Amino acid sequence: MKGTVLYGTRDIRFEDRPEPKITKPTDAIVRLSATCICGSDLWPYRGIQPITGPTPMGHEYCGIVEDVGKAVRNIKRGQFVVGSFATSDNTCVICRDGYQSSCIQREFMNTAQAGVVRVPLADGTLVATHDSPPTEMIPSLLATSDVLGTGWFAADAANIKPGATVVVVGDGAVGLLAVLSAKQMGAERIIAMSRYATRQKLAREFGATAIVTERGDEGVARIKELTKGIGADSVLECVGTQESMMQAIQCTRPGGYVSYVGVPHGVALDGGPLFFAHVHLHGGPAPVRRYLPDLIDLVLNGKINPGKVFDLVLPLDQVAEGYRAMDERRAIKTLLRPM
Amino acid sequence: MKGTVLYGTRDIRFEDRPEPKITKPTDAIVRLSATCICGSDLWPYRGIQPITGPTPMGHEYCGIVEDVGKAVRNIKRGQFVVGSFATSDNTCVICRDGYQSSCIQREFMNTAQAGVVRVPLADGTLVATHDSPPTEMIPSLLATSDVLGTGWFAADAANIKPGATVVVVGDGAVGLLAVLSAKQMGAERIIAMSRYATRQKLAREFGATAIVTERGDEGVARIKELTKGIGADSVLECVGTQESMMQAIQCTRPGGYVSYVGVPHGVALDGGPLFFAHVHLHGGPAPVRRYLPDLIDLVLNGKINPGKVFDLVLPLDQVAEGYRAMDERRAIKTLLRPM
Repeated sequence: MKGTVLYGTRDIRFEDRPEPKITKPTDAIVRLSATCICGSDLWPYRGIQPITGPTPMGHEYCGIVEDVGKAVRNIKRGQFVVGSFATSDNTCVICRDGYQSSCIQREFMNTAQAGVVRVPLADGTLVATHDSPPTEMIPSLLATSDVLGTGWFAADAANIKPGATVVVVGDGAVGLLAVLSAKQMGAERIIAMSRYATRQKLAREFGATAIVTERGDEGVARIKELTKGIGADSVLECVGTQESMMQAIQCTRPGGYVSYVGVPHGVALDGGPLFFAHVHLHGGPAPVRRYLPDLIDLVLNGKINPGKVFDLVLPLDQVAEGYRAMDERRAIKTLLRPM
Repeated sequence: MKGTVLYGTRDIRFEDRPEPKITKPTDAIVRLSATCICGSDLWPYRGIQPITGPTPMGHEYCGIVEDVGKAVRNIKRGQFVVGSFATSDNTCVICRDGYQSSCIQREFMNTAQAGVVRVPLADGTLVATHDSPPTEMIPSLLATSDVLGTGWFAADAANIKPGATVVVVGDGAVGLLAVLSAKQMGAERIIAMSRYATRQKLAREFGATAIVTERGDEGVARIKELTKGIGADSVLECVGTQESMMQAIQCTRPGGYVSYVGVPHGVALDGGPLFFAHVHLHGGPAPVRRYLPDLIDLVLNGKINPGKVFDLVLPLDQVAEGYRAMDERRAIKTLLRPM
C-alpha cells in the first residue's frame, strides 16, 4: 500500500507503506472512499511545527470497513463509515460528557492520506451509515470527519443562539464551515472576516450576511462599527495565531463567547486584557464524534452541503500537488481520491 | 471628612479629603455604616501594581443615603443601601445581559475607605433594603458589595451544578466565599486549596469537604488523585497569579469549567496547553450588581453569613493597621467602622 509521508519542509512523498493490519481487538481496517488535506497539515508542511523525522500524514477519512478486530461489536465489514480525527472509546466519563476528543484512550489519527487505514477503538470512533451513500455525497460525508465537525464545534462552543450576531475569524475551510454551522444554529447576522474573493463567495453561500476584509485593530474597529460599539455575541476563532486570537477576543461583547478551534501556534494570552474583556472562552480539539451522527444525517438529508469546501479534487498519488495548491492558496481544501 | 490615601508602598494615610458632593444629577451621597479592605488593595499596597501619585482607596461600602441628585428616581434619602465596586446604569445592553461591571458607563469606585462616599449612577448601582437592617448583619451586607459578589461570580462563571466536584484555588476572603457560593449552588464536593489553619477552618465552616495543602504540580497531582485522575468539574481561581491560573486549568477535567475573578498580575496563558486542556474559561470583574438583590435577601433571611470573613474589625482611622494585618496574613479581611 502507498501512503503520504512528510519528510521535511514542503517535502511530501507518496510512497510504499506497510499494509495496515488489526493490531488490537478493538481495531477496524477501512478502505478509504476519500481522504483530504487539513489546514493543520500546513503547519508542519511549512516547517512552522517541527517534525522529528519522516511523518505519515492524514486524519480525515471515510470509507468501507474491510476488517474488524474480535472485540468490535457495532461496526461490521462492508459498512460505510466516517470517523473522527481523534479516536475515542465513547464510554469513558469524558466521552459521556461529550468530549470524545479528550477520551482517556484517545489517539490522534495520522495515517489517513492513504488507501487503507487502521482505526483504533472502532466502536467508539466510527459512525456507520444505514446504507451505502451515493457517490456525490462522499465529499460532504468526508467533511464531517473533521473540517465540518470542527466548524460545528466552533459554533457550539461559542454558544450561538437563534438571533445572534456572530463573527468568524478565518476564511479557511474550517472558518467557512463555521459560517455554515452558525447559520444552522440560527444566527441572524454572520460576519465573515475574509480577504479572498473565492472564499468570500463561499462564505456568502454558506450564510454570511457581511464580509469584513480588514484585520487586526482595523478589523476590530470595523466589527465594533457593525455592532453599535458593543461587539458580537459569539466570535469563532478558526486560525490559531496570536493576531487572530486577539482579534477574536476584542471583537466580542462583554459577556459574549469566543471559541477557538485552530491549534494555537505562538499564542500567549495576556491575563489582564483577557480579564477585562469579560468574555467566555472555550475551545480545543473538536469533539467531532459527539456531532457525527447528526452531521451525517444533515448531509444525507440534503440539508447541508459542506463538501463545497473541496475546490480541488486530485487522485491520491498527486497528494504533493494538493499540498502545494493549499500552501499557495490556489485551493481552499484538497480532496484526494484513492485509486 | 477624612479618607484613606495610598502614598506609596506600604504607606497608607488617613487624612483630610474634600467632602463628597453631588456632581452629577445621577449621583447619591452615602454615609457609610461600614467599609473594608480588599485583597486587591494589597497589590498597589505592596508595590506590585504601580501608582502614579497619592491614590484614594476603597470600593466596598454600605450605608445610609444622605442625598441624591435630581435625576435619581429609585434611591431615596434615609435608605440603607449596598452598592457594587463598579458603577452601572443597569439599563444598557451589557447591563441587561447581566454584565453590569462592564456597563458602558462604568466607573470603578475608589474612595470608599472613608466616612462618606459619592456613588455615581445611583439608581443603577445601589440596592436598597426594605427596612434598616439590624446592626449585626452589617458585616454580611457589606460583604455582598464585592467579596461575596465576586466569590459568587466565581461559582456562577464556573457553571457549578448540583452534585458537582469543585476546587477553589485561593484561600483569601474571595476564595472562602467562593466555597460558600459553591455550597449554595449545590456542589457535592468542595475541595479548598489552603495552607493556613484559620482559613482551612473557615473553608470547612462554609462548606469545604476536603482541604488540599499542596500547590503547583503537587497540588494538581493531589486533585487528580481525588478525582479518579480526571480533574474537577468546576475550578474557581481566586488569586490572579500565573501559578494559580495554571494550577486551576490543570485541575479541571476536559470539558470542565475554570473561572477567574482575581485581577491577573503577570499572567500569560500559553495557547497550546490551554487548547488541549479543553476547558471553558470565564472571568473578569464580577458583575456584583446582577447578584446583589438575591445575595442581600440570602443575608437578611439568615441563610448565609459571609461576614465571617471579617476577622479583624477596626475603627476607620486605624485603616493603616488594617492593611498591615492583611499584608502580614494576621487577618483574612479587615472591616472598618467609621466613627
